[in-house]
Amino acid sequence: VLKRDYAGQDCPIAQTLEVIGDRWTMLIVRDAFLGLRRFDEFHASLGLSRNILAERLARLVDEGILQRVLYNERPPRYEYELTKRGLELNVVLTALRQWGEKYLCEPRGILRRRSDRKRAVAAIVQEGTPAISAHDLELVPVGPRRMSRGK
Amino acid sequence: VLKRDYAGQDCPIAQTLEVIGDRWTMLIVRDAFLGLRRFDEFHASLGLSRNILAERLARLVDEGILQRVLYNERPPRYEYELTKRGLELNVVLTALRQWGEKYLCEPRGILRRRSDRKRAVAAIVQEGTPAISAHDLELVPVGPRRMSRGK
Repeated sequence: VLKRDYAGQDCPIAQTLEVIGDRWTMLIVRDAFLGLRRFDEFHASLGLSRNILAERLARLVDEGILQRVLYNERPPRYEYELTKRGLELNVVLTALRQWGEKYLCEPRGILRRRSDRKRAVAAIVQEGTPAISAHDLELVPVGPRRMSRGK
Repeated sequence: VLKRDYAGQDCPIAQTLEVIGDRWTMLIVRDAFLGLRRFDEFHASLGLSRNILAERLARLVDEGILQRVLYNERPPRYEYELTKRGLELNVVLTALRQWGEKYLCEPRGILRRRSDRKRAVAAIVQEGTPAISAHDLELVPVGPRRMSRGK
């Protein structure tokens, strides 16, 4: 019922949520940005059932967000990599991470431009402002802060 | 079950999705950005059940994304408005809209800076790049394109 009513909300935001709005789907995309490529890597990272993972991966391939790449011929084995369309979800993911790090938890990583290590942020800017592409971004993990002395 | 497994994914993206990842919730936030404020306005726009809407609005207030503002004393009636924290979801919503307009459907609106009408986009940029705040943005609707001649 939700699905059908919801589909009536045909603005671009609603349609995008139809494609990636499922939370596991968004986390699969997040993991793909973090460099995961194989079924077992996603499975180990997310801890969801293999059936659900397979279904979500197939959907992401259907939607053109991930593509399957053969990495072993016998037996045939595939990896999943982000397409151009998938890479452009970068702004969505970064905006979600940024908001979460500001309001919900400690930062877990520093997003920066690979070439010069300058920090990068998701923002609304004037069209034409130089943007940093997904290929030139890296997320450098920061560990949990430790107490320096005493407890 | 999803919920519990999912909560184990404690990175900022997973936590943000815990708060706003429900699709109706995201559409309520979208509508708040479009200027809707009253329960009946959200209800008319989204067409979801009053119970679910009430529950989602209460959750958004609990999470500090919307705040209730009294607009009528007798009987007491409240409007919902975005808090500062809510306004900062702007980047998430704009990124979702932008991706949807690029890959899923025709643009429905032009996002621009109110003060000079320059077009605005969501992007990953170097930290320190001038950003456009939610208060200085407007989304100008564009109608569906019409065929000019013949079919």
